[in-house]
Amino acid sequence: MFKLFYAPHTCALASHIALEEAGAPYQLTRVDFKANEQRRPDYLVINPKGRVPALVTDAGILTETPAILAFIAQSYPQARLAPIEQPFAFAQVQAFNSYLCSTVHVAHAHRLRGYRWVDDPAAIEAMKKKVPASVGECFALIERSMFRGPWVMGEDYSICDMYLFTLAQWLEGDGVDPKLYPKVYEHRRRMSARASVVKALAQEGAQR
Amino acid sequence: MFKLFYAPHTCALASHIALEEAGAPYQLTRVDFKANEQRRPDYLVINPKGRVPALVTDAGILTETPAILAFIAQSYPQARLAPIEQPFAFAQVQAFNSYLCSTVHVAHAHRLRGYRWVDDPAAIEAMKKKVPASVGECFALIERSMFRGPWVMGEDYSICDMYLFTLAQWLEGDGVDPKLYPKVYEHRRRMSARASVVKALAQEGAQR
Repeated sequence: MFKLFYAPHTCALASHIALEEAGAPYQLTRVDFKANEQRRPDYLVINPKGRVPALVTDAGILTETPAILAFIAQSYPQARLAPIEQPFAFAQVQAFNSYLCSTVHVAHAHRLRGYRWVDDPAAIEAMKKKVPASVGECFALIERSMFRGPWVMGEDYSICDMYLFTLAQWLEGDGVDPKLYPKVYEHRRRMSARASVVKALAQEGAQR
Repeated sequence: MFKLFYAPHTCALASHIALEEAGAPYQLTRVDFKANEQRRPDYLVINPKGRVPALVTDAGILTETPAILAFIAQSYPQARLAPIEQPFAFAQVQAFNSYLCSTVHVAHAHRLRGYRWVDDPAAIEAMKKKVPASVGECFALIERSMFRGPWVMGEDYSICDMYLFTLAQWLEGDGVDPKLYPKVYEHRRRMSARASVVKALAQEGAQR
């Protein structure tokens, strides 16, 4: 039995969907960001970074979305969530997810978490202004150069789809019109209808 | 034969060291950041993101350090650069490398690449001021909660060591005293003496 620590509207949704798709047994534990629970000592024992997601497994605790997604894919090979036996194809999956965590998520984070990188309140406000452009640029690149269709990696549905869908939830909030990226937009619509996604969003109480 | 596109003083060093450690055949191609070559159309065909590293393989082109490192480890299992057969241990490797790319490298990038996230020159300057604290906080966490010793993952040298070493090169430039993190500092010293690292740094003409 896994235990997933999550908060609604965060990237933990990707791991949540993956657990559903894998048919893995799991429990959810919500971390209340409004009460700053992610910084409490008892949670820092789980994840010293004070972030979500954190996945408690029989072998220990995992953090970082790309690692958790690959772990679920590798642990449930029958679910075929990643081409784990093909080093190059698996690396492409990892490269896409790495781009999402290191560039796309980071661009988004400058809207609400600018304090991570600057103290000056005026600079925090200045950061917010660029989010529509920087997030939009990321999604333009995904649309133009990365997304193969019908799924991110082409014919095979994978952990990339769950993660892209999760970050695509934030487009309107970031001031980006998702219709500018028709492949991503249509992908988001299709993903929204999957049973795993419907269930995960309902469980998180985070339906759009 | 692989071809690695790199620039000195960038995270491409990690992939370069990994190629050496794996005993993989490779050629280096330097991308001249001062001449803005990474934004030229011919390079954007290689990597539409306009960044390094990019690894040209027989199967196609890979980007993103965590993906390239895992690919090299998986392609050269005899070099034992990652526990690729053990899903949980491999996920821990991926989690560490994911933290480096999504948090540590990003904190560092606010010193010289603040324009990615803000347009206002005053805000770019304000960002620079926080880099010693934000990068320092990352390394404090690595020192306290992640680094097992003698290598990042404990007894087994891995792709985590190459990546950590690469980012630890930047500490002084970021205004962080590496001696505050004795395990990381001693690790950097030991890594500096490895034949693969000596050779990679010499090839890049980027010796400290």
